[in-house]
Amino acid sequence: MQRVRVESFSVSVDGFGAGPDQSPEEPLGVGGKALHRWAFTTRTFRRMFGQDGGETGADDRFAARGFENVGAWVLGRNMFGPVRGPWPDESWKGWWGDTPPYHCPVFVLTHHPRPPLEMDGGTVFHFVTDGFVAALRQAKVAARGKDVRVGGGVSTIQQGLRAGLIDELHIAISPVLLGGGERLFDGVDLVSLGYECAEQVGTPHATHVVLRRKA
Amino acid sequence: MQRVRVESFSVSVDGFGAGPDQSPEEPLGVGGKALHRWAFTTRTFRRMFGQDGGETGADDRFAARGFENVGAWVLGRNMFGPVRGPWPDESWKGWWGDTPPYHCPVFVLTHHPRPPLEMDGGTVFHFVTDGFVAALRQAKVAARGKDVRVGGGVSTIQQGLRAGLIDELHIAISPVLLGGGERLFDGVDLVSLGYECAEQVGTPHATHVVLRRKA
Repeated sequence: MQRVRVESFSVSVDGFGAGPDQSPEEPLGVGGKALHRWAFTTRTFRRMFGQDGGETGADDRFAARGFENVGAWVLGRNMFGPVRGPWPDESWKGWWGDTPPYHCPVFVLTHHPRPPLEMDGGTVFHFVTDGFVAALRQAKVAARGKDVRVGGGVSTIQQGLRAGLIDELHIAISPVLLGGGERLFDGVDLVSLGYECAEQVGTPHATHVVLRRKA
Repeated sequence: MQRVRVESFSVSVDGFGAGPDQSPEEPLGVGGKALHRWAFTTRTFRRMFGQDGGETGADDRFAARGFENVGAWVLGRNMFGPVRGPWPDESWKGWWGDTPPYHCPVFVLTHHPRPPLEMDGGTVFHFVTDGFVAALRQAKVAARGKDVRVGGGVSTIQQGLRAGLIDELHIAISPVLLGGGERLFDGVDLVSLGYECAEQVGTPHATHVVLRRKA
């Protein structure tokens, strides 16, 4: 059965999925990079960026499973780039260079239309102007039976949770404080929405928590 | 140097230190008991309640250190009992029976005066009507050079954090969702207040996080 999954989404001990004062220089907000330290210890992420080595324990197991059986992605606009408002031209092609690590269709939420963008390695960015639910519907078709991964950010995930459209959510609690920014679970009542904590695994780098929507 | 510590304070994955709809029957709110499951696996807590056995790993290490070098406590009113408003009489003597597990002076925040209450085993409950800072001041004197432990609940801890009066905070993130209730870090900017994450240790039962105020 096709599922909708959030994977490897990092939050701070104080609950923030991005730091305060996001800008082109600090796309994850001030201090936000430290959220992802666990991921960059793993073999999975190092390989993705052309590096050798990396650890192969529980952190890597969670990083790797995040890419398994994924046929399409949904991303919020800020995950794709720092451009706000209408696209000034088509020069911005994402944070990831010519060969993004998706290798499948990626549906980017935006208020401003733009033609699809085909990258090397099988990634095609589609720009969706009619909201999360519409983007998810298109992603489900494009995934051809595989799962859809919702990449983030916080606002995009919250839309999915509130609509009851996310089946499973893996978060990594990193041993950092951010003090401010976007809180992942602000205004979201996970119990009323039917989620339960299915798994919690701690490593020296992060605590991995799997939340699952009860059938 | 005398320190002010929060110890073994349990929160859910969604950040709540107590569940919704607190009542005399559910002093920790609906679902709140599950927050403390990790503690009741430990030898330290089992002994405290006259039971044999219990685990001796990292959970127990954190439970035990919470009682080391503690000379006095500060507790919010709801931690002491379910009575709201003026004390109808002096029959309520806390949740813990004749011999509470404190064995030292305990300063209880309340808006309603009441004479001190001496229990078996060295615990004396003092009722403080002029706020957290005053209670902490009295507790520091009563502790005679030992540390003061702030027991909770959420509102009491938040008062201490915002006033910059808590030196160290051990929280245990339990693998449960509560959906609502009191969020420990709501409206508290730990970074601006000078805290950093000093330690994070995961066990199958909980993730232990130590936050410390930078010197």
